[in-house]
Amino acid sequence: MKLARIGAAGQERPAALDADGTWRDLSEVVPDITGALLAEGLGAVYAALAAGTLPVLEPRRFGPPVADIGKVVCIGLNYRDHAAETGATPPAEPIVFLKAADTIVGPDDEVLVPRASTRTDWEVELAVVIGTQARYLADPSESAAHIAGYAVSNDVSEREFQLERGGQWDKGKNCETFNPIGPWLVTADEVPDPQALRLFLSVNGETKQNGTTADMIFDVNTLVHYVSQFMVLRPGDVINTGTPAGVAMGRPGTAYLKGGDVVELEIEGLGRQRQTMGQA
Amino acid sequence: MKLARIGAAGQERPAALDADGTWRDLSEVVPDITGALLAEGLGAVYAALAAGTLPVLEPRRFGPPVADIGKVVCIGLNYRDHAAETGATPPAEPIVFLKAADTIVGPDDEVLVPRASTRTDWEVELAVVIGTQARYLADPSESAAHIAGYAVSNDVSEREFQLERGGQWDKGKNCETFNPIGPWLVTADEVPDPQALRLFLSVNGETKQNGTTADMIFDVNTLVHYVSQFMVLRPGDVINTGTPAGVAMGRPGTAYLKGGDVVELEIEGLGRQRQTMGQA
Repeated sequence: MKLARIGAAGQERPAALDADGTWRDLSEVVPDITGALLAEGLGAVYAALAAGTLPVLEPRRFGPPVADIGKVVCIGLNYRDHAAETGATPPAEPIVFLKAADTIVGPDDEVLVPRASTRTDWEVELAVVIGTQARYLADPSESAAHIAGYAVSNDVSEREFQLERGGQWDKGKNCETFNPIGPWLVTADEVPDPQALRLFLSVNGETKQNGTTADMIFDVNTLVHYVSQFMVLRPGDVINTGTPAGVAMGRPGTAYLKGGDVVELEIEGLGRQRQTMGQA
Repeated sequence: MKLARIGAAGQERPAALDADGTWRDLSEVVPDITGALLAEGLGAVYAALAAGTLPVLEPRRFGPPVADIGKVVCIGLNYRDHAAETGATPPAEPIVFLKAADTIVGPDDEVLVPRASTRTDWEVELAVVIGTQARYLADPSESAAHIAGYAVSNDVSEREFQLERGGQWDKGKNCETFNPIGPWLVTADEVPDPQALRLFLSVNGETKQNGTTADMIFDVNTLVHYVSQFMVLRPGDVINTGTPAGVAMGRPGTAYLKGGDVVELEIEGLGRQRQTMGQA
């Protein structure tokens, strides 16, 4: 199933895509798409959708597909080609950093170049949405049971803030609007192999990233298991699983983002995002 | 004013300390102590407290003093003596990293040594609680207007996870229960000089940290201004402003924390915490 939140920012209504490709308003079934809903299960949503009587919802604007994302756990340098382009040694174990949830915006919302920014960069990423609490999982084979689904994420990054302003990446990862997620959450049952998805990103129509999740150094199940050894993953938490090659930082001479640029990204089967850059 | 949230975990009631030193139940005045309440102002709370008719609340357990903390922004190596003890050069600008809000527990709640931990350490810190949104402040002199108040925070840290497991500190800072905050929020008007507060921490009765906020490299107003250039500080967000000397990492041969240890910490005028360590 594809779940979305449709409507003006802060007034989104929960929605699901029916078999005919029409968005249906779930407001009479569930209050919102939340971590709690993902944890309790989507039985009522499936039943209501099958009944075929839910109101149609025009998808004018998609918000983030989960309402109350608690934290965004990000994985650094997790694609072989991206590690190579940045000159980094592939990490021996996952690099973990955090984005605060208040950086999240809808998939087509404006993204702001921070004031004083010189190097605002893009990163198309497969986002894993947690469905049930994962804490000290015993083995990566346990991970799948804790994953509600997948979405497209743009892990926007200011490279000077991240790398040249005092040592921890978070400083360049948590600027306002720096994490578009969506347009929808695709439940895990509809993503038979999360390690076989193509990812694309273009700027002003020019392809910048064209990769595959097959190139991940640590796969999704390994990441969920690994992160659960260090922190509790809760329903509605998100893991940004790293980006393939093709970021501006990886290719000297590439222009960084500026106001007016249009960033489009897509993951096979998970939908497309389109952001126009603004200036903070 | 001193504001607290008193009651069993997840069932705390908002409370304020009256002039006689008695905790009064604010439930009939406000739904909870939240960022939204801090932003809108405490006029109704002051009026109700002055009326003297609020029910008495027995302070059996203090929860975190703010209900919906959004993010915890942490400052690294911000005390001259702590930078020296860790062998680090004092930073040229603030080091910023994040703790997810789901690490927060009450001031006297159990703190868990993570599984596989070898070096769980303590850090008494002055927590700044944001009252109104701070975004690209023009000058540190604007910071004070955005600060609701102050509290005691223990920025618990697993040093091996932080420093030896792949490059970003967040991995050792976000373990379950790793951020006791409280017992109460002291509004900024009752903290005339946040740079003149003594901080103490002991383990099993032995003093480990005994510092003063006068020793901060970057003062509170500088930090709020600085952080607001990189991310939006919202009502209910917390800044952990760094720790003075005396952490286990700073003194080779010092035992790290283990199950059963008792950690007590205090900041002058802001109250005391007491945690018994458990094992995850």
